[in-house]
Amino acid sequence: MKFTCKKSDFSNGINIAMKAILGKTTMPTLECFLIEAKGDMVKLTSNDMQLGIETSFPADVKEEGIVLMNARNLAGYVSHMPDDTVEFESDASNTILIFSGMRRHEEKGMSDDDFPRLPDISFSDKINISQFTLKEMIHQTIFSISSKENNKILTGELFEIQGDELRIASLDLIRVSIRKIKLNKKYDKIKVVIPGKTLNEISKVMSNDADETVDISFSKNHVKFEFGNTVMISRLIEGNFFNIDQMLKNNYETKVTVNKSRFFSCIDSSTLLMTETDKNPVIFTMQDDEMKVEIKSSHSSMNEDVPIHKEGKDLKIGLNPKYIVDVLRVIEDEEISMYFFNSNSPCFIKNEEESYIYLILPINI
Amino acid sequence: MKFTCKKSDFSNGINIAMKAILGKTTMPTLECFLIEAKGDMVKLTSNDMQLGIETSFPADVKEEGIVLMNARNLAGYVSHMPDDTVEFESDASNTILIFSGMRRHEEKGMSDDDFPRLPDISFSDKINISQFTLKEMIHQTIFSISSKENNKILTGELFEIQGDELRIASLDLIRVSIRKIKLNKKYDKIKVVIPGKTLNEISKVMSNDADETVDISFSKNHVKFEFGNTVMISRLIEGNFFNIDQMLKNNYETKVTVNKSRFFSCIDSSTLLMTETDKNPVIFTMQDDEMKVEIKSSHSSMNEDVPIHKEGKDLKIGLNPKYIVDVLRVIEDEEISMYFFNSNSPCFIKNEEESYIYLILPINI
Repeated sequence: MKFTCKKSDFSNGINIAMKAILGKTTMPTLECFLIEAKGDMVKLTSNDMQLGIETSFPADVKEEGIVLMNARNLAGYVSHMPDDTVEFESDASNTILIFSGMRRHEEKGMSDDDFPRLPDISFSDKINISQFTLKEMIHQTIFSISSKENNKILTGELFEIQGDELRIASLDLIRVSIRKIKLNKKYDKIKVVIPGKTLNEISKVMSNDADETVDISFSKNHVKFEFGNTVMISRLIEGNFFNIDQMLKNNYETKVTVNKSRFFSCIDSSTLLMTETDKNPVIFTMQDDEMKVEIKSSHSSMNEDVPIHKEGKDLKIGLNPKYIVDVLRVIEDEEISMYFFNSNSPCFIKNEEESYIYLILPINI
Repeated sequence: MKFTCKKSDFSNGINIAMKAILGKTTMPTLECFLIEAKGDMVKLTSNDMQLGIETSFPADVKEEGIVLMNARNLAGYVSHMPDDTVEFESDASNTILIFSGMRRHEEKGMSDDDFPRLPDISFSDKINISQFTLKEMIHQTIFSISSKENNKILTGELFEIQGDELRIASLDLIRVSIRKIKLNKKYDKIKVVIPGKTLNEISKVMSNDADETVDISFSKNHVKFEFGNTVMISRLIEGNFFNIDQMLKNNYETKVTVNKSRFFSCIDSSTLLMTETDKNPVIFTMQDDEMKVEIKSSHSSMNEDVPIHKEGKDLKIGLNPKYIVDVLRVIEDEEISMYFFNSNSPCFIKNEEESYIYLILPINI
């Protein structure tokens, strides 16, 4: 194999394919890229057995071929290259030579025999949405996935399509985060759970440009994301997700509207008093047009009065301030609305059209 | 005690005094600032028993007084304050109240009885130099202090004043880094070793403005830095530093001049091949107007020809590329000169006027 390409194209491809390279493993092939030169493109493939990535970039291919090379070494060499052009070649014994300017790297590659290629299966119809929207939806919900591997299903996010609506949700048994958008047309019903790690990695390589789109399709056990010259295929998490609709009863006795920045500054500051030993909640006392926010630890206390607009009954409730901070951090609205039933029922933070719904369980006070 | 001050003044003072607050200790007083309001200033004092700091900022003092408060808590509260003005008060029982906007923090402080105040000793004449110059000298030498506590003296830097010359040096037995400057007048001879940690912390709070100066003075066991409204007093490291002059013989057989960026790119790239298991040196072969740079690891190799200007004999020598990278990173000259005697003698990197001298021991090849 022999090709010449632009350093920046090679680097971009490496950055994307790197997302499916694990840290140190006992299997050297999993630390490698499959590098394949064909036609006028070079394709990099990586596979950590949960997420697989194929990404291509343009190259002047002088000799087609295929080789396996350690991904981190390749990334290091290419990022340090002195020249804008990189020349790559490998021979029948898988010896790899990389040239740039006056520099020459030589490295022993491997044959592609044992490399786990991406599954060749058929997928459902493609759903097309903006990459930016998908990134945003993930960002606004992924913080409440569970990190506990003993309940595997909660380490992923629910992706649910019904008619022309896509709903993404995550929950960790104390809180639920939900984002909804309208799709451009109706699709067949889909309800799957995608690993949180996959969504994180995908977010990192997708564009912030609202005009660039991604195609999403599903098989029984996999989800496929296609965008630009890149394909990412991830395993799904098996099992049934919790019934979210059951949690979303819309009754409330108290509705509070508050300026987000003002509220955020207060709540963020209150988390300073949450030491590892003191796990006291923040106590909210909503009365008339003021919300008293109080927190006490063993040696300190803080309180602040935050102006609110209240509808319904007065209420006193205890909440973990860190969960509120997580939500306020990802909402872009200037005003937010919170809905309460009583001091033992979840607090809802949501907008009118319910494009986002956050639910946080209270702490007994 | 009662005072009102600007949040930014309070924050700046806290940032400086924080440099002498350790992580978790078994002595709560060492995690505290001594806060003292007097006249129209508030003084913060911190002391980690090696480094002590006093820093003052202007305040409207309504009632003079003194109290001890946990430094990290204070830093957290003040940085999150909603308003530009902060009100601080403490009573006879050391209960502290901090107000800003609609927010109120209450915290139990401590009496100042057990706080280790800064030593009240007499110091030598003050040496006055630019803060920027001192920072730069530290930055250009501190990377070669030793991190091994078993040879305590090498965890510090030599500060040596002779006539109107200040010399700073560090060494870790494999390399030496030296920086020299001319002072504005002649001073008494000084030769002390200042802890590396002290120099690091001082660098962080000193100004980048070349016009702002720092006064440095010495006692038998301490060094004092005074700048702006801040005084920092550090213990010195006891013992005799290595005789550096003995190492600085000026004989050389080969002198090589090379473009720094070009050389840096090559050497930095070669460090990629230094894995934990392969400790092979980079081999430099200087011949005519080219330097061949080669490194081999178990599976990879790299070589590059770098154009040089050479005076004297051809030479082949092995060096640890990481040590060269450390030096090239802090030199600002576009061209650098290296001096060699033979392949078993140290490599010198220095400029004509010897305002910097770096010495690196070679590796046998």
